[in-house]
Amino acid sequence: MRKGEQTRQTIIDHALKLATQVGYQGLTIGRLADDLNLSKSGLFAHFKSKEELQLEVLRRAADRFIADVVRPALSAPRGEPRLRALFERQIAWERTWDKLPGGCPIVSASIELDDCPGRARDFLVQSQRDWAETLANAARAAIREGHFRDDLDCEQFAYDFSGIMLAYHHAARLMKDARARERAEASFEALLRAARRQ
Amino acid sequence: MRKGEQTRQTIIDHALKLATQVGYQGLTIGRLADDLNLSKSGLFAHFKSKEELQLEVLRRAADRFIADVVRPALSAPRGEPRLRALFERQIAWERTWDKLPGGCPIVSASIELDDCPGRARDFLVQSQRDWAETLANAARAAIREGHFRDDLDCEQFAYDFSGIMLAYHHAARLMKDARARERAEASFEALLRAARRQ
Repeated sequence: MRKGEQTRQTIIDHALKLATQVGYQGLTIGRLADDLNLSKSGLFAHFKSKEELQLEVLRRAADRFIADVVRPALSAPRGEPRLRALFERQIAWERTWDKLPGGCPIVSASIELDDCPGRARDFLVQSQRDWAETLANAARAAIREGHFRDDLDCEQFAYDFSGIMLAYHHAARLMKDARARERAEASFEALLRAARRQ
Repeated sequence: MRKGEQTRQTIIDHALKLATQVGYQGLTIGRLADDLNLSKSGLFAHFKSKEELQLEVLRRAADRFIADVVRPALSAPRGEPRLRALFERQIAWERTWDKLPGGCPIVSASIELDDCPGRARDFLVQSQRDWAETLANAARAAIREGHFRDDLDCEQFAYDFSGIMLAYHHAARLMKDARARERAEASFEALLRAARRQ
C-alpha cells in the first residue's frame, strides 16, 4: 500500500470511530483535522467534502460487516446452519461495537441519515438492501435444503431477522439489559421454529 | 395556563421538532434562540442547561406517547384486543412522525443518547422500561383472559413487540419500503399466533 493510501485508511478508521460518537452530522473535516493533528487543507486533499467523508466511513463500515459477518458465515453449510452463523456473527459484530464508544455505525447511520438525502444515504440504503437480500437468499436455500417449509415468505423472514437485531441493539446498548443476548436468541429460535417444515 | 407556562410549552414543542432534525446533541439553547427569535438569556430563564432542555423534550415526547398510544388503547377490552390496539396506535404514532422532519423522537434519542450518561438518558431508559412493562402486563392480562397460553414469557413478548416496531421504523423511514406496514402486521400476527393457546 502506498503511503498516501495508508494515511487515507488511518483517517477513515478514525473518522468511523468519531462518527459513532458525534454522529454523521458532527463528523466534519474541521473536527477530524483537530483530532488527528492534520491540516484542514490536507484533509480536503483526501476528501473533497463532508459528504464524501461520510460516504467513505459508511463504505468502511459495510466492508467490515461483509468481512466479519457475511463472508465467514458462507463457510457454514447452506440452510439453517448458515442462517445461524449469520445470526451469531451479527451478534458478535454488535458486541465488538459495544466496547467502542458510540455503538454500531450502521445502526446509528440508519437513524441519523434517514431523512438526509444524498450519496451517503443512498449508499446506506443500498447496503441494507444487499443485506436483506443476503438473508432472504439464505432462507431460500434453507427451503431448497428441506429445512424450511416451501411457502415461507423469505423477505418477511429477512425483515423479522433485522427486527431481532435492532431490538438486541436497543436492549444491550440503551437498556443495558443483562438478558439482551438471551432474548435475541429466544426470538431467533422462535423465528426458525415458525419457518421449519412441520 | 399562565403566559410564562404557555411560552415554555411553545418552546418545548419547537425544540421537539428541532431535536428530530438536528439531533439531541445539536439541540442547543443558542440554536433554539435563533430559530424562535428569542434571546439566549430569556431561554436560559426557562431551561437552565442543554441537558434540562433535552430532558423537557423527552418528557414532552413521552407524554404525547402516553396520550396518543397508551391511554386510548386502555379502552379496548383486556387481552388480545388491547394488544392489537397498542400495536395499531403505535404504528399510527410512527406515521404521524413520518410526516414531520426527523421521525420519531424516541427512536432517535434511543440511538443518540445510548452512550451519553445523564438525566436525559436516565429518563429515556425509565420511560422505555415503563413501556416494556405496559406491554408485558397487557400480555399477562391476555393469559388471564384465556387468549394466551399460561407458559408464555411475557417479557419476551414485550421484547419481540418492540423489535417489530423498530424494524417498521427502519423499513418505513430509511428504506421507504412501501410494504413496511404490511410486513409489521405480518410479524405481529405471527407473534400473536405463537402466543395463543393451541
